[in-house]
Amino acid sequence: MSQFDAVEVIRTKRDGQALRDGQIDWVVDAYTRGEVADEQMAALAMAILLNGMERREISRWTDAMIASGIRLSFPAEALGGRPTTDKHSTGGVGDKITLPLAPLVAACGAAVPQLSGRGLGHTGGTLDKLESIPGWRATLTQDQMLAQLGDIGAVICAASDDLAPADKKLYALRDVTGTVEAIPLIASSIMSKKIAEGTAALVLDVKVGSGAFMKDIDPARELARTMVALGADHDVRTVAVLTDMTTPLGLTAGNALEVRESVEVLAGGGPPDVVELTVTLAREMLRAAGIEDVDPAQRLADGSAMDVWARMIRAQGGDPDAALPTARETHVVPAPADGVLVGLDAYAVGVAAWRLGAGRARKEDPVQAGAGVEMHAKPGAEVRGGEPLFTLHTDEPDRFGRAADVLATAVTIAPAGSRPDLPDLVLDRIAE
Amino acid sequence: MSQFDAVEVIRTKRDGQALRDGQIDWVVDAYTRGEVADEQMAALAMAILLNGMERREISRWTDAMIASGIRLSFPAEALGGRPTTDKHSTGGVGDKITLPLAPLVAACGAAVPQLSGRGLGHTGGTLDKLESIPGWRATLTQDQMLAQLGDIGAVICAASDDLAPADKKLYALRDVTGTVEAIPLIASSIMSKKIAEGTAALVLDVKVGSGAFMKDIDPARELARTMVALGADHDVRTVAVLTDMTTPLGLTAGNALEVRESVEVLAGGGPPDVVELTVTLAREMLRAAGIEDVDPAQRLADGSAMDVWARMIRAQGGDPDAALPTARETHVVPAPADGVLVGLDAYAVGVAAWRLGAGRARKEDPVQAGAGVEMHAKPGAEVRGGEPLFTLHTDEPDRFGRAADVLATAVTIAPAGSRPDLPDLVLDRIAE
Repeated sequence: MSQFDAVEVIRTKRDGQALRDGQIDWVVDAYTRGEVADEQMAALAMAILLNGMERREISRWTDAMIASGIRLSFPAEALGGRPTTDKHSTGGVGDKITLPLAPLVAACGAAVPQLSGRGLGHTGGTLDKLESIPGWRATLTQDQMLAQLGDIGAVICAASDDLAPADKKLYALRDVTGTVEAIPLIASSIMSKKIAEGTAALVLDVKVGSGAFMKDIDPARELARTMVALGADHDVRTVAVLTDMTTPLGLTAGNALEVRESVEVLAGGGPPDVVELTVTLAREMLRAAGIEDVDPAQRLADGSAMDVWARMIRAQGGDPDAALPTARETHVVPAPADGVLVGLDAYAVGVAAWRLGAGRARKEDPVQAGAGVEMHAKPGAEVRGGEPLFTLHTDEPDRFGRAADVLATAVTIAPAGSRPDLPDLVLDRIAE
Repeated sequence: MSQFDAVEVIRTKRDGQALRDGQIDWVVDAYTRGEVADEQMAALAMAILLNGMERREISRWTDAMIASGIRLSFPAEALGGRPTTDKHSTGGVGDKITLPLAPLVAACGAAVPQLSGRGLGHTGGTLDKLESIPGWRATLTQDQMLAQLGDIGAVICAASDDLAPADKKLYALRDVTGTVEAIPLIASSIMSKKIAEGTAALVLDVKVGSGAFMKDIDPARELARTMVALGADHDVRTVAVLTDMTTPLGLTAGNALEVRESVEVLAGGGPPDVVELTVTLAREMLRAAGIEDVDPAQRLADGSAMDVWARMIRAQGGDPDAALPTARETHVVPAPADGVLVGLDAYAVGVAAWRLGAGRARKEDPVQAGAGVEMHAKPGAEVRGGEPLFTLHTDEPDRFGRAADVLATAVTIAPAGSRPDLPDLVLDRIAE
């Protein structure tokens, strides 16, 4: 019989005390094995959400989640001396940054071992986007991953089920028990997977605003600080940037639409905000990896990032030159009035893309490769009533109505000569 | 599809808001039907424990628990004009008060429809005690209960499974999720059953001290106030008395041992504290029922309470004159020193009785009718080293060692001439 007892662990946190190391190790392991029941972990998760955790507890909880599965490592010799560095975004609307960023950072001399996920709800998933490229496969073995990383310097693939399985089980539980919002559990969920993935350096893009999980800057800052501390405690050089998500990133939200825009960025063009954030995050990833003498903006301009992209896509079975899928139907939404576009709500645009078929409500649902929202103006632009503001894409035209309904709430137009009062793209930077 | 969603209900309470009536009605009903999962109710219970509930919420929650099952009622004409009145104790060591109390109050002209339970852990259950009487049956139909109540004026029987089934399911969940201690849930659990039972008046004996669920007076007072308010909101005239449970009640803890002591009280003898509390609670029950002109002490003295006892036991198949079962083995524990007994810890005595076989660890476990602890001295008494302090009773002599171990921690002896500093038996009285 175990010296631990689920009710005693729950009571400790319920009564506002810190969990001891042994309690944390036991409860995470016993929950993964099914010895601690879902209802017990749900009560504990609620107590953690309401009573919080100290840095030591969160760190130990993260260790226990990592210990529930395998831990990857990338021997320096297999990577030809490239240091590993990765990025994680907490998720936003139109956030395709990983696509140009991973090959760009590889083109600058680092290795990017990005284990990524699929989308749920109004934010898209990196794997869903890449899967719109004909032939591209998300699943690699560990050996394939290591070989590609050594050869090309960038891998974006699906995380193995063996990586932090405790997190998988706990996340599904939190989703149905109103305990997703616990900062210690968000931080340990993200960081357990990134630490188990084996990267030596990590940049966190913590999104703030209507289109993000974190609507306000204060909890976003707390989450960022918590994750940076977890990285430091686990010898992963970690830095967080807080970035604005009140407005979508770029001019597209949808899988193939975002791949197209990413390729434009890799070709030296693309929307300024996508370029700015890609270069900013590339600089942070390189700095965290100890590479200071390469300018990522130049590697975008000279085509070397695009070369890595093409090799990376090909290595996973994709054809970088193939035409991307397009939706069967399109529908243009005109601007409702003359004036200046001063607001374009990220959440509403995300929901519209989701309703068009770009996202999923449950994790078993399929997504449409071609579906999504194309924006013809961003805040600050002058618009004329009746001219195109959005083009909606979907295979199922009966989806247009509800997508247009929510987009109508996304748009704020002010009289000509007005200036939008928009936050900076990068709001803050947090390091230890 | 329901307009309600479990996660939304959990979030409301998690974020410190009051639950709306419709949310409460839905979540209790959906949980009883299995549509809300155990892990969701566990998270909600923890949020209720940590964030509390307003009086209106607790009242509505109680309504929803009552509505999950049947509700009894006792037409005045079927009871020959007797008003109904009942008592509930939150549970203590040696608390056999219901046994003499129900027939005593019936002998004073009221009707006592007591639905009772079995023991778990270190406190005994009224039904376990009565079941040590040869032939006595806890289970009655509603018709049998009503007939006995009209004829004799007192029934002590098992609650039907159809009475507040939501409470049954929720209590089992709270037991394994560290959420037993939520005052709104304790209060609504107790009161939903008592209100559904159909009594018009109710006296609550809220125990305070080491042997009770509530160790301290402040939460006990809060629980008492909450239950009194719930009674008022449901037209049950309710009063609470807070009583001491630092020391066991009477001189016995164990099933048949406590029946024997109860019969002594009904015969006009018995330990003074048991007599005092029985008469105090009888007065409160009668007052709440509008009977002011009868003196229960006199009905103990004149044998009329004993007459009702004998009829009540016989009506449920028991033989009030039969010899009570005794344990196969006894073991005497002597006083460790000369002096004055100044402390006799209720919790330790309760655990000793439990270890001897009088109680159960899981609700499926059997109990021994004859097992328990007999005390030969109560605080204030002079004791002499080597003379009997306890007699332990059990069918299984290998239980003596662990029972004696815990009893050794129960006893505090001070030099001759010392006086124990003990709380009053009745600590407070709470009414609307």
